[in-house]
Amino acid sequence: MAKQKKNALGVTRAEDYSKWYLEVVKMAELAENSPVRGCMTIKPWGLGIWENIKTEFDKRFKEKGVQNAYFPLLIPLDYMQKEADHVEGFAMESAIVTHSRLEKDANGKLVPAGKLEEPFLIRPTSEMVIGEAFSRWINSYRDLPFCINQWANVMRWEGRTRPFLRTSEFLWQEGHTCHATAECADSYSRQMLEVYTDVNQDLMAIPSIPGIKSESEKFPGAVSTYTFETMTQELKALQAGTSHFLGQNFAKSLNITFQSEEGKEEHVWTTSWGVSTRQIGGLIATHSDDDGLVLPPRVAPSHIVIIPMLKNKEKAEAVLDYCENLKKELGELAYYGRAIDVVIDKSDSNSRAWDWVRKGIPLRLEIGAKELEANSVFMARRDKDAKDKVSMDKAQFVEQVKLILDDMHENLLAKAEKLILDNTKHIDTKEEFYKFFAKDEEGAKAPGFALTHWNGDAELEAKIKEDLGVTIRCLPFAEAGKVGKCAFTGEPSKQRALFARAY
Amino acid sequence: MAKQKKNALGVTRAEDYSKWYLEVVKMAELAENSPVRGCMTIKPWGLGIWENIKTEFDKRFKEKGVQNAYFPLLIPLDYMQKEADHVEGFAMESAIVTHSRLEKDANGKLVPAGKLEEPFLIRPTSEMVIGEAFSRWINSYRDLPFCINQWANVMRWEGRTRPFLRTSEFLWQEGHTCHATAECADSYSRQMLEVYTDVNQDLMAIPSIPGIKSESEKFPGAVSTYTFETMTQELKALQAGTSHFLGQNFAKSLNITFQSEEGKEEHVWTTSWGVSTRQIGGLIATHSDDDGLVLPPRVAPSHIVIIPMLKNKEKAEAVLDYCENLKKELGELAYYGRAIDVVIDKSDSNSRAWDWVRKGIPLRLEIGAKELEANSVFMARRDKDAKDKVSMDKAQFVEQVKLILDDMHENLLAKAEKLILDNTKHIDTKEEFYKFFAKDEEGAKAPGFALTHWNGDAELEAKIKEDLGVTIRCLPFAEAGKVGKCAFTGEPSKQRALFARAY
Repeated sequence: MAKQKKNALGVTRAEDYSKWYLEVVKMAELAENSPVRGCMTIKPWGLGIWENIKTEFDKRFKEKGVQNAYFPLLIPLDYMQKEADHVEGFAMESAIVTHSRLEKDANGKLVPAGKLEEPFLIRPTSEMVIGEAFSRWINSYRDLPFCINQWANVMRWEGRTRPFLRTSEFLWQEGHTCHATAECADSYSRQMLEVYTDVNQDLMAIPSIPGIKSESEKFPGAVSTYTFETMTQELKALQAGTSHFLGQNFAKSLNITFQSEEGKEEHVWTTSWGVSTRQIGGLIATHSDDDGLVLPPRVAPSHIVIIPMLKNKEKAEAVLDYCENLKKELGELAYYGRAIDVVIDKSDSNSRAWDWVRKGIPLRLEIGAKELEANSVFMARRDKDAKDKVSMDKAQFVEQVKLILDDMHENLLAKAEKLILDNTKHIDTKEEFYKFFAKDEEGAKAPGFALTHWNGDAELEAKIKEDLGVTIRCLPFAEAGKVGKCAFTGEPSKQRALFARAY
Repeated sequence: MAKQKKNALGVTRAEDYSKWYLEVVKMAELAENSPVRGCMTIKPWGLGIWENIKTEFDKRFKEKGVQNAYFPLLIPLDYMQKEADHVEGFAMESAIVTHSRLEKDANGKLVPAGKLEEPFLIRPTSEMVIGEAFSRWINSYRDLPFCINQWANVMRWEGRTRPFLRTSEFLWQEGHTCHATAECADSYSRQMLEVYTDVNQDLMAIPSIPGIKSESEKFPGAVSTYTFETMTQELKALQAGTSHFLGQNFAKSLNITFQSEEGKEEHVWTTSWGVSTRQIGGLIATHSDDDGLVLPPRVAPSHIVIIPMLKNKEKAEAVLDYCENLKKELGELAYYGRAIDVVIDKSDSNSRAWDWVRKGIPLRLEIGAKELEANSVFMARRDKDAKDKVSMDKAQFVEQVKLILDDMHENLLAKAEKLILDNTKHIDTKEEFYKFFAKDEEGAKAPGFALTHWNGDAELEAKIKEDLGVTIRCLPFAEAGKVGKCAFTGEPSKQRALFARAY
């Protein structure tokens, strides 16, 4: 490996955070722009991460009694008409299908033909369609709870896009559930938020602050919106996913009823909850450094790269055999539900080591004639400095590899937790609050999170947003019941709210 | 369980095969029609089957060095313009996106707005887009073979649709690979066909006849199209999936080149291969009976249903405990890569047993006070007559359950193999051939498959198709090299071709 980091990213977080983010995505080969405005192509390394995220969520959803189904990509316009609230929300900027055929014009150019009587839109969500199905599928209290999830692609044209964080097409899951009582539904939506925060912590080493949205920030039509907010290294908040308790609002507008145990016709109580490929944006923003992507081991598509050092031509074959055997040995170990995945990089590129650093692979082993002779490995951990390499006995390495991976996970989690802790302030006066969030230059780092008492007034909330570009990210569960005085008015406050700049 | 089959399907295969097929889909709750023309909603039981199919294929693709990626849903029209052949093939009947927004008109009705300068079509395939990426991603012989797969939804408006067998939107995988030589590419496309036939046989108990398509039937632009054909109980052929060796045709039109080991710029050799939710159509058509769906155990979303018989109220709780314990015990066993999945149906419906028969669940256990007392289970296998139930010691059942499931798999496979064997004739004269395939009534059963020598002439092939509605499904690999005389002209024939009516 070259001493000088000639191959590292050409930009640091401190220099230009936005450019750095794009460079991490590019150099780790996670995704690239596509010819369709705002839509990305997810490359194998990026999709591998998504597959691991998906597998873990899917397993935990199923443990909660969720069944997967698949609904059509296209939605008739009149379905959207039914729910004006939602349409205003995000369905307006949709991809509209108006024609059913291509024809060649006089010049042989392909042009739309076969105009449809009723246009369709590409789903920005399947909420309406799933609700309509519920109204037919659910009959009795015996059918409840009824829990459906869909893994699918959705589209909403976005103005300013950024890979994974905001794209016009994205992959997501949307869960929709029906319950017999308000308590069951509300409790279920909280449980799903817990699934989200658990997977973020256990799989991706991402700590988050779960809580409830203020009235102004909640999902249109929801009784309560639960959210979990993570902190990027730019010290902004990222809404990583939400879970909504929808009361009977949705059931009433779509007429989803059931016969209760007492034989009465009642409306169900519903929830919905979703996370998307934005989770990968959160992963990048939480862990990556100036050398590129850093992947917590449990979510990494591959855990280990072996770089055979073949300068000694006589020993080359033996070194390769040694690497292959090690790969096989490691592949027999299961770590966090799947076999340890090892790549052997046989390319003759000089930048092999740095290529893998930038891709964020957890462990890098450099193995040459010296290691062969000593029956050892030369190891670098992605969570430590790239030059910080140690020699280890091979058998000992195999024996300890799972512990090493776990240690990396804990280390990354602790680092991310420290970032939140170090950058979250209890602020108790308006003056201090306004000073803390004083408007700064475009692209500059945000000051962090403020936990501040607030009287619950939406107008005050709007004023703060207008003055500072700062929003209430959530009323953290951890602060519930800890009453105080509003920092802005001196009025009573039920609990501290989490204020921050956000994506 | 009621003696009389009052809850079985209302129609038999013999009475009306098409209606029977729809009834199987409906009563097994696999899918339902959606409000979008030709598009279905895949219900949990149907999607569970697809998830198992997908998991098994994905595992075997990865063993062949395939990496998954995700490309955008929308394709700019000018991408399609590039490849006139393909456009003529199936892209003409596409869903065309022409607008980017909804607006409310004077009456508050939602109408398309924001006309796009260049329309998009919803992918009927991602071939062009993936090829364009290859032209940028591949540089050197060291990058080869380069093997990409995508799991995604695609759309092609279809006139006459049938759930799973032919739908306007469907789920599929498309694999695209690049190789340094013709031999490598051709061999790879054959290997992928083998993956297809292996998974069909090992997972779904579906035997198939693999072979090569005739020139007339092959994919436009392919050098060779490999296919595997299965036989439905209507004795028609179903093309279950294809794998294409595309030579350099595709690489030349999209300019996918690499620098060879000798330093020369050369075009790559490509393959493509795909299977879709049509596989579920094949599964239904192969195994189901007049009582509904029959699921081979390895592909079934759940393996076993336990039906607690709770007439004896005093023992009810103990019986339920017994069932729960059994479920837990079985859930600790892994069968074909996943835990044995057990459902306990506690509903009070009288039709529980028949509901599960129609859903095709492999094993049905009825457990009441009698079984509790005897420490036994009362078991019915879906591959046998519904009334054919046996009592078994519980411990013995748990010990043998995997063998029982394997036996069911083998039994279903043997039955399907026998259907092909019994209904495939060697036919050696034109007269006999025309008699065999004499045109029959709409909806009637086909006569089966004919293995017949043919001189390789496309006009003769077209004439047969015109006269009888019979096509060459493939030139079976098993017949390769077995020369003979053309049944129609007496000319030399290189091998027998497989003729049949097809979907």
